[in-house]
Amino acid sequence: MIQKTRGGLCAPAGFLCGSISSGIKNPKATRLDTALIVSARPCASAATFTTNVVKAAPVLVSMDHMKTGKVRAIVLNSGNANACTGPAGLADSRRMAKAAAQRTALAPEQVVVGSTGRIGVSMPIARIEDGISRIRLSRGKSRACAQAIMTSDTFPKEIALSVKTRSGTFHIGGIAKGAGMIDPNMATMLCVVTTDALLSQAALRQAVRASVETSFNRITVDGDMSTNDTVFALANGASGIRPPAAVFQKALDTVTQSLARMIVKDGEGVSKFIEIVVRGAASPDDAKRAAEAVANSTLVKCAWAGGDPNWGRIMDALGYSGARMREDRTKIFYDNLPIVTGGTVAGTPWAKLRAVARKKEFRIVIDLAVGKSSHIVWTTDLTEEYVRLNLGE
Amino acid sequence: MIQKTRGGLCAPAGFLCGSISSGIKNPKATRLDTALIVSARPCASAATFTTNVVKAAPVLVSMDHMKTGKVRAIVLNSGNANACTGPAGLADSRRMAKAAAQRTALAPEQVVVGSTGRIGVSMPIARIEDGISRIRLSRGKSRACAQAIMTSDTFPKEIALSVKTRSGTFHIGGIAKGAGMIDPNMATMLCVVTTDALLSQAALRQAVRASVETSFNRITVDGDMSTNDTVFALANGASGIRPPAAVFQKALDTVTQSLARMIVKDGEGVSKFIEIVVRGAASPDDAKRAAEAVANSTLVKCAWAGGDPNWGRIMDALGYSGARMREDRTKIFYDNLPIVTGGTVAGTPWAKLRAVARKKEFRIVIDLAVGKSSHIVWTTDLTEEYVRLNLGE
Repeated sequence: MIQKTRGGLCAPAGFLCGSISSGIKNPKATRLDTALIVSARPCASAATFTTNVVKAAPVLVSMDHMKTGKVRAIVLNSGNANACTGPAGLADSRRMAKAAAQRTALAPEQVVVGSTGRIGVSMPIARIEDGISRIRLSRGKSRACAQAIMTSDTFPKEIALSVKTRSGTFHIGGIAKGAGMIDPNMATMLCVVTTDALLSQAALRQAVRASVETSFNRITVDGDMSTNDTVFALANGASGIRPPAAVFQKALDTVTQSLARMIVKDGEGVSKFIEIVVRGAASPDDAKRAAEAVANSTLVKCAWAGGDPNWGRIMDALGYSGARMREDRTKIFYDNLPIVTGGTVAGTPWAKLRAVARKKEFRIVIDLAVGKSSHIVWTTDLTEEYVRLNLGE
Repeated sequence: MIQKTRGGLCAPAGFLCGSISSGIKNPKATRLDTALIVSARPCASAATFTTNVVKAAPVLVSMDHMKTGKVRAIVLNSGNANACTGPAGLADSRRMAKAAAQRTALAPEQVVVGSTGRIGVSMPIARIEDGISRIRLSRGKSRACAQAIMTSDTFPKEIALSVKTRSGTFHIGGIAKGAGMIDPNMATMLCVVTTDALLSQAALRQAVRASVETSFNRITVDGDMSTNDTVFALANGASGIRPPAAVFQKALDTVTQSLARMIVKDGEGVSKFIEIVVRGAASPDDAKRAAEAVANSTLVKCAWAGGDPNWGRIMDALGYSGARMREDRTKIFYDNLPIVTGGTVAGTPWAKLRAVARKKEFRIVIDLAVGKSSHIVWTTDLTEEYVRLNLGE
């Protein structure tokens, strides 16, 4: 039985965390911008990184450190992505890992690094090292860690679950940050999951890989995929409970899907949350292409912002998605109301459809009726506010 | 020698055209919405259609009629795309062709049809038939035809050239409409080209295919490709001049590229025209992917709207484009100013770069330095105005 609980990353036994203001964006700022999470005992570790060819320095350093299989601590910062910063940036990420290792009495290779913020700006590494050295670790600071990794996020994203199994109870917790550049294959998205369940490294890695597919790889706000996206997971076994694989997967999926939904809802300038379900596709790839073409169509997203259940733009996006389809078989629903059947207007009263499109949250179901594959994407509308927030400078 | 001239579609000898208000959107409206173009003598014909799987009825009917090789007239309307309208829509497009055939004393199969406007709404076909029957054909109405096919366009798009060859002078003219859903592989884009040069059907078709690649397939405003995109070309030989292939190609490319640029500049809510040149790519496909990823990144486009030469977002888009690249080799320029070298900041004073990004028109050159292929895309910024125009209802 899965129940929500408090404590975020520290709901699981044997984890400590803390955060501080290193003054990354501005030496005088007091905003939390640096976080450290550590397992008090050896643990299994897993990570998933951006598939962007342009990988930020912390991603490259963390990929390297993950290979040791001995990671126990995670150091994170906001305000600077340390991306496109060349060899100096790599050295800075290594210095962050080293500073965190000194603070936690671990080897630098046991620390992984996550950074989010502006691209192409050098890190104020001395201030960050100083900040890390001053972080106080405790069991009550998960929320402050969630705050420290926020960029344009409007609220900290945190969750914790207690999971009762036949042999006893384990806990799992997580924090995440999202906002801009949210797309499948991760995003400017950082996520940390901790659990006191007992799992082998292989089991944890497989569970995380699978869970990312049905959570973070399902979300898209603007179709841009960032250079820094990372999910870290640590499992330290402190509960002594070795859950059945399916039970752990369910708990992990609940954590990642909850955080992914929070990220979408907190997307820049977002006013609506939309679940797109494509079914009846000729292949899983086709289902994905169709769902993502609709989710990333600026015209479709603008219509949603206006509360317009514009099905023509959806048909158009399906048509260029590359998914096999037959116009005369295609069905589209807003929530449960048919809007398209046989490729043309279904006849549901427009006022009813508009009422759905004006809700804060609704579901589009697209039945291509040419096969058996399906795919789900969570997305948003595209608002004037989004553009305003991204005008830059 | 190529020179601009007047007369648009009727600058070439032996073409007549006219337009009328059929009251397509509103029976009482007086806005021009229906146009007819006809060659007074047999001619070669060519067409390129949307690659969207969802093809509008006029596209399907025109594809069919093109097979006869005897097309001599083109009938166009705005206000209704006749897309996603099922068998009834097909019948309506055939009725349009038939009405135009009666008006011009041709067979219905000698007429092709183009429609643009709202998707999924039945055509007021009786009003359109009546309108077509009342169109007066003359040699002075090209501009009125350009007006009749406008939707959210803010100005009519028209061009004409006189081309002096060793054996004499021929003419070529064109009209187009653009605005929303502008993407490579055409767009809600209609274009008609006429010429009095003497060409075989095969030569015209090859020239048009090649020309579309370096003009309409080079433009992208919002990444959405429409169900109705069509280019029609008629060559009636009335000048008696049979130009060398390269001369005709150059003239045709001048027409299509001029119209394509007008379409981009008139994109919905557009404030800037940006040429993206990718060179040094490992393959032509890679060059295309890289250029289009940058051109379609909402984050990059928002930064341009704000006059921010944000190179981090460009690097990010290149990284997820799928094009082979090496971060440490990548160079980016705003006009001729380096902004990125070796994957990181080049050191040009920011004020100079910002001055470029604030211009109404500039060029981004991206040198991937991993191969020899290149690609050019013409695109725009993404403004709040764009979103406002596309909120629907």
